[in-house]
Amino acid sequence: MEPVGLREAGPADHECDVLVVGFGAAGAAAAHEAAGAGADVLVLERAGGPGGTSAQSGGELYLGGGTEIQKACGFDDTPDDMYAYLEAALGPHPDTAKLRLYCDESVEHFEWLRARGVPFKASLYETPTWMPPTDDGLMWLGENAWPFTEIARPAPRGHRPAAPLFAGRVLMDALSSAATGAGAVAHRDTQAANLILDDDGRVAGAVARRYGKRVVYRARRAVVLTTGGFVDNDDMLRDHAPVLLGHGKVSDGLDDGSGIRMAAAIGAATRRMGEVEVALAALPVLVARGMLVDALGRRFINEDVYPGRFSHHAVRHQPGPYWAIIDEEGFDQIPEPDLWGVRPKHAAETLAEMEESLGMPPGSLANTVEVYNRHAAHGEDPYFHKDPRWLRPLRGPFAAFDPGDGFWGSGGPASGVSGFTLGGLHTDLDGAVLNHSGARIPGLYAAGRASHGIHGEGYVSGTSLGDGTFFGRRAGRAAARDATA
Amino acid sequence: MEPVGLREAGPADHECDVLVVGFGAAGAAAAHEAAGAGADVLVLERAGGPGGTSAQSGGELYLGGGTEIQKACGFDDTPDDMYAYLEAALGPHPDTAKLRLYCDESVEHFEWLRARGVPFKASLYETPTWMPPTDDGLMWLGENAWPFTEIARPAPRGHRPAAPLFAGRVLMDALSSAATGAGAVAHRDTQAANLILDDDGRVAGAVARRYGKRVVYRARRAVVLTTGGFVDNDDMLRDHAPVLLGHGKVSDGLDDGSGIRMAAAIGAATRRMGEVEVALAALPVLVARGMLVDALGRRFINEDVYPGRFSHHAVRHQPGPYWAIIDEEGFDQIPEPDLWGVRPKHAAETLAEMEESLGMPPGSLANTVEVYNRHAAHGEDPYFHKDPRWLRPLRGPFAAFDPGDGFWGSGGPASGVSGFTLGGLHTDLDGAVLNHSGARIPGLYAAGRASHGIHGEGYVSGTSLGDGTFFGRRAGRAAARDATA
Repeated sequence: MEPVGLREAGPADHECDVLVVGFGAAGAAAAHEAAGAGADVLVLERAGGPGGTSAQSGGELYLGGGTEIQKACGFDDTPDDMYAYLEAALGPHPDTAKLRLYCDESVEHFEWLRARGVPFKASLYETPTWMPPTDDGLMWLGENAWPFTEIARPAPRGHRPAAPLFAGRVLMDALSSAATGAGAVAHRDTQAANLILDDDGRVAGAVARRYGKRVVYRARRAVVLTTGGFVDNDDMLRDHAPVLLGHGKVSDGLDDGSGIRMAAAIGAATRRMGEVEVALAALPVLVARGMLVDALGRRFINEDVYPGRFSHHAVRHQPGPYWAIIDEEGFDQIPEPDLWGVRPKHAAETLAEMEESLGMPPGSLANTVEVYNRHAAHGEDPYFHKDPRWLRPLRGPFAAFDPGDGFWGSGGPASGVSGFTLGGLHTDLDGAVLNHSGARIPGLYAAGRASHGIHGEGYVSGTSLGDGTFFGRRAGRAAARDATA
Repeated sequence: MEPVGLREAGPADHECDVLVVGFGAAGAAAAHEAAGAGADVLVLERAGGPGGTSAQSGGELYLGGGTEIQKACGFDDTPDDMYAYLEAALGPHPDTAKLRLYCDESVEHFEWLRARGVPFKASLYETPTWMPPTDDGLMWLGENAWPFTEIARPAPRGHRPAAPLFAGRVLMDALSSAATGAGAVAHRDTQAANLILDDDGRVAGAVARRYGKRVVYRARRAVVLTTGGFVDNDDMLRDHAPVLLGHGKVSDGLDDGSGIRMAAAIGAATRRMGEVEVALAALPVLVARGMLVDALGRRFINEDVYPGRFSHHAVRHQPGPYWAIIDEEGFDQIPEPDLWGVRPKHAAETLAEMEESLGMPPGSLANTVEVYNRHAAHGEDPYFHKDPRWLRPLRGPFAAFDPGDGFWGSGGPASGVSGFTLGGLHTDLDGAVLNHSGARIPGLYAAGRASHGIHGEGYVSGTSLGDGTFFGRRAGRAAARDATA
C-alpha cells in the first residue's frame, strides 16, 4: 500500500498518458473519455476481464430531468425536481455541489450512455421491487412515496439497461467495449499495489502484480483510481463501517479498498467512510401490502418507500429482528411469481399468538395493528403517510415473514442484510483527489466507490453506477488534459 | 498541514527527546510518563496555559474493577464486570483490545491519578444527573439501568475530582503540575502546524507558530499528538461526522483536528471518524420520572439510562423534536434545586390538547401513555424495562419540556444538542500511530481524542478523559523508550 519513489520503482514496463486502475463502470467511463480526448490510456483490472461489481449489479442508473425514456413513458421531469428528490433521499448531508452538477447534466449523461450502446427500452415497470423481472427501461425508486411526494414532483428515474433482473452485465459490456473502442488498452489479471511518486510528490504511475510478477506502469499525465469500495475488507469495515460486519457483501469479491488505501498512504483525504448502502432481502411488494415492524412490534416507516430506504431505517435505527406482517387477504392478492417462492416463517390466528411466536412484548403488535387499522379504515396513515392504495385494515389470520427471506432466496446472506460502502477518497468536481489541506494531489484522480460521491446518509439504487459513470467521465477528461505534469 | 523535510525545516530552535503536542489530560499524562522515564520532554500548547477541553469538562473518569473509592462506598467491582458493561454500553463494536487493557489496569490507573494529586472523595451521588452539584467522588453512569443490569453486576464507576459540577479544572491542575513537576517543559501560545520527516520517513519534530513566528522543534525520539478531536472544524465535521453540524460543541474552541490532519497527511490511518458523543441538555431527573418521546409521540428507551444514552438514541435514531412528558404529580416530586430553573414549554389538561400543541399525530401520545400506564400500574415496562422505582401511571394535567432546555440553561446551544468527536488516528496499545498497511509510523504516537480510543458507537461520560489519560501514559512511556530512532 505504501508509495514508492520513481527511482525505487525502477524502469517502466509500460508507459501511458493516463493509467486507470479498475475496469468497472467508473473505470470504463474514465478510460473512454481520456482516450477520446487523445490520451494514451491503459486500464488495469485485477480480475480476468472487465466488469467488476458493476457487472454483477442490477444495472440501474439514476437519471432524469427529462430523458427521452421519461418523456416516452409520459413523465415530465426537471433537473430541479430530480435535485430536490435526491437531496432529501440521499440525505441528510449529501454532497450538494456534486449533486447539483449530476442533476443539471443528467439528460446529457443519459444520451452519452445511449450513444455508447447501452440499450434502454421506453416502458415503465410499475410494481415496487428491487429489480424488475422484465426488460422495462424505467422504474420507480421511491419518488412516489411520502415524504418525497411533498418535496418534488414525482417522476420515475430508475433507468435500466434492457434485460431482466441483473442488467449490470449489459451495461458493462457496452461501456467496456466503448472504452476499448476509443483506444484504451486493458491489462487484465493485473493488480495495482503501490502508487509511484516522483521527486515533487506527483503521482507518476503504479507498481502492480501480474501472475506473481512485479510490473511497473509509468503514467505521464495522471492515474485514475476506480477500484471500488471496501466491503470485502473486514479490517477496513471494522475501522470505518462496522455496521456491515457480519452481513452479506454486494460486490464482486474484490472490493477491498486497495485504491483508497494506496491514495490515503500518500496523504489523500477521505470522506464519509462510515456511510453504507444496506438492503434487506425483503420483497417490497409484500412489505408494501402489510407492515414492517421491529423487534418490539413497532412500525417505523411507510412501507411503500424504496426498499433501500426501509432497509436502511431498519438496520441503522431499529432493534431487530424485523418482520413483515401481512394478513391472508393481502397475501392472496400477490401474484405467485412476485413471491419468488418466499413463504411465511410464522402464521397465527390472533396477534397475541403472533407476539408470542415472535418474542414481542405482550400487546405490542396488537397495539400497532389496532392503531394502523383504525386509520387505514379511512385511507389514512397519520404516522408515516403510506399511500392509500396500500392501506387496508389487516384482519386475522396473520402471517409473519422474515425480511431476510427474499429476493436472493437461499443464496442470500444469513443475516438477510447485504450492503456496500459509500465512503472513499475526497475528490473535487473533476475527480481530482484532495489532500488534508484541501489541495489537489498532482496527478491523482478517483471515481466510483473508491471516492465519496453524491451521497449523504441515504442511498437510492442507481446513484452508485450513476455518479460513478458521471464523475468517472469527468475524471477521465481532466486526467487527459492534466497540466500539472 | 502537509509535512516538511528535515532540511526544509531548517535549524532547530528547540530540541528534546519527546515532543508532546497539546497540554490537555492526554498530553499531561504522556508528558509525565515520558519525563518520568528519563526523557527530555517539551509540551506545546496553543492556548495561554494547560487545560484544553479537559479542563472545561465535568472531570469524570470512568474507573473501576475495585477502586478504593468504590470499596469505601460499599461496592464490590471486578475488571470483568467493568469490561462487560463498557463492551455493551460503548458498543456496538468498541475496540475490545484497548478496552480489555483499560479495564484490567483500571485500579492501577486510579491509584496513579490519586498519586498525582487528583482528589477523590469517598461518597456516592445517587440521583441521575449529568454532573453532580456536590463534591462527591462517585456517581452512576448507567450501570444500574436495563439492559446493563442483566449484562454486568452494577457498580457505579464515575470517579470525580472533589469539586461541584465542572470538576475538569481540578483534574487538569493536578495533571499539568505533575507533568511539569516530573520535568516536562511547556511552551504555551505555540501551535504545531506541520510534522517534520527525516529522509527515512521518520517523524523528527514539528514546525510551530508562536506569536506569528515560525519555531522549529526537533524531537530526537518521538512526537506524541494529544491535540484533541475535531468538533470545532466544520469542514471536518462535514467530511466525517455531519451529525454534529449545527449543534453545540463540547470543546475549548480549539478542537480543530490539527493533529489528526498533520498525521493523516503523512499517511496515518484513522478509525471511526463518524462516531460522536451527543448530549441533549435535558435534565435526567425529569426525564426519568416521566417519558421521553419523539416527534411522533413514541417512547424509544428506558428513561433511567445514562443521559448520554437517551441523547444518543434520540439524535441518532429518532425523528425530532423530542419531548420530555411528565405529569403534575411527578413534577412536584422534583426538588426545586434539581430543576435548574427549567420550566415546561407546554402544559395541557388532556393528551389530545398536548398532541395538538406539539404537532403530533392525533392519538399518538395518548396511545403511548395508555400503553405505558397499563404496565406501569403493575410496576412493569415490557418495552424498555425502566426500573420500577421510576414507573407510575401518568395522569393529567401534563407538561412537556423541550429537552434543549436543561442543564446549560440559556447559555446552551440553540438546538439543545451538543457533542464532540470520538474518531481519530489509528493507534495500537502503546499509542503508536499506524499507517494504512497496519505498520507503526516511526516516531509518532497519539492519545486522547486525536486518536480513536476504546469507543464503538456508544459513549459513557468519563471514558474520554479515562482512555485519554490511560493511553496517554502508555504513549508517553513508549515514546520515551522509542528504539526506532
